[in-house]
Amino acid sequence: MKKVEAIVRHFKLEDVKNALTEQGIDGMTVSEVRGFGRQKGHTEIYRGTEYAIDFVPKVKIEVVCSEDSLQLVVDTILQTAQTGQIGDGKIFITNLEDAIRIRTGERGEDAL
Amino acid sequence: MKKVEAIVRHFKLEDVKNALTEQGIDGMTVSEVRGFGRQKGHTEIYRGTEYAIDFVPKVKIEVVCSEDSLQLVVDTILQTAQTGQIGDGKIFITNLEDAIRIRTGERGEDAL
Amino acid sequence: MKKVEAIVRHFKLEDVKNALTEQGIDGMTVSEVRGFGRQKGHTEIYRGTEYAIDFVPKVKIEVVCSEDSLQLVVDTILQTAQTGQIGDGKIFITNLEDAIRIRTGERGEDAL
Ligand SMILES: Nc1ncnc2c1ncn2[C@@H]1O[C@H](COP(=O)(O)OP(=O)(O)OP(=O)(O)O)[C@@H](O)[C@H]1O
Ligand SMILES: Nc1ncnc2c1ncn2[C@@H]1O[C@H](COP(=O)(O)OP(=O)(O)OP(=O)(O)O)[C@@H](O)[C@H]1O
Ligand SMILES: Nc1ncnc2c1ncn2[C@@H]1O[C@H](COP(=O)(O)OP(=O)(O)OP(=O)(O)O)[C@@H](O)[C@H]1O
Ligand SMILES: [Mg+2]
Ligand SMILES: [Mg+2]
Ligand SMILES: [Mg+2]
Repeated sequence: MKKVEAIVRHFKLEDVKNALTEQGIDGMTVSEVRGFGRQKGHTEIYRGTEYAIDFVPKVKIEVVCSEDSLQLVVDTILQTAQTGQIGDGKIFITNLEDAIRIRTGERGEDAL
Repeated sequence: MKKVEAIVRHFKLEDVKNALTEQGIDGMTVSEVRGFGRQKGHTEIYRGTEYAIDFVPKVKIEVVCSEDSLQLVVDTILQTAQTGQIGDGKIFITNLEDAIRIRTGERGEDAL
Repeated sequence: MKKVEAIVRHFKLEDVKNALTEQGIDGMTVSEVRGFGRQKGHTEIYRGTEYAIDFVPKVKIEVVCSEDSLQLVVDTILQTAQTGQIGDGKIFITNLEDAIRIRTGERGEDAL
């Protein structure tokens, strides 16, 4: 199993959620974050170095999926979260060792 | 070391915390999230497909523990977070490469 | 690539951010959490056992970086987040399988 973490613009959350659900991806966790990447256009000179100065609010979407669904999940997020403007966000992928559905105790892909 | 991430109902947080502490698990991080799994009972028809419509607020509990404690942590969460009703939550397990206590610089299991 | 998660005191966030940026680390994600470690000084006796009772608000900083930058990121956080008092926080390190810049589709270290 894999965990896909996508940090995207707030106004894209509904689109991403609907697109994933339409693809049969039935689970996600969302949280409020703030951050910056290479914040071109929002910089300031400090001790001779150019700094990113603002934390911009973003939304983090976490989707745990099977290895078989990974490409679909990533492609769906890429297609729906992209505006082409700086600050569209990032996707991070990690390996997941196990998943458990608390109600039933099911483990692994059966728990997704 | 392992990281156990449990997404549970808010009203279960105190029980889970107390049960883990009672087992000698001395550290956790909690954050507010919202999400959905297979949200039976909260669906809507959209373009002919049935959709989960609501993000339900949940609490995410992160516990970093030794491999030796993993089973205890998982069992304790399962036993205390379960109600048997849909929406009890999920547990996700990932491998952790290192942990460091910032105050002392201790690393690995000594840092837990 | 690696994901460095640091849970630190709120008033250290600006220092950590500035120190990382000064080192050329151009990306991070921040979220509000609460938690406890070995909460010496904030304990209570319950059924004969000493308990940590309070969740203390902290800030979680996530930095995804190359393996080459890992040591720099960790050392920079350690140096800036440390006060020497109990509760300075923890750093957790996990392996990251991939990173993608949503705007361009770049993957791997090119996406950082
Ligand atoms: N290296 C990183 N580590 C952790 N989080 C990051 C990192 N880089 C970016 N992020 C998160 O992703 C969000 C969006 O980043 P952003 O899209 O600006 O990336 P970027 O690399 O600067 O790409 P772009 O050039 O398109 O702006 C940030 O607000 C931050 O929360
Ligand atoms: N695949 C997933 N990826 C990320 N987060 C998930 C996933 N599935 C569930 N979650 C998180 O877990 C929470 C609880 O999920 P839930 O208990 O409804 O799972 P479920 O599989 O639908 O089980 P049940 O049938 O018992 O409802 C969700 O609100 C969401 O935050
Ligand atoms: N085992 C753990 N799992 C998950 N999060 C943890 C763990 N231990 C600590 N944390 C997080 O780190 C924060 C700070 O922990 P803290 O600095 O008190 O660690 P500690 O081990 O008690 O060290 P100290 O003795 O310096 O207080 C906690 O509030 C919690 O959010
Ligand atoms: Mg940017
Ligand atoms: Mg459900
Ligand atoms: Mg402590």
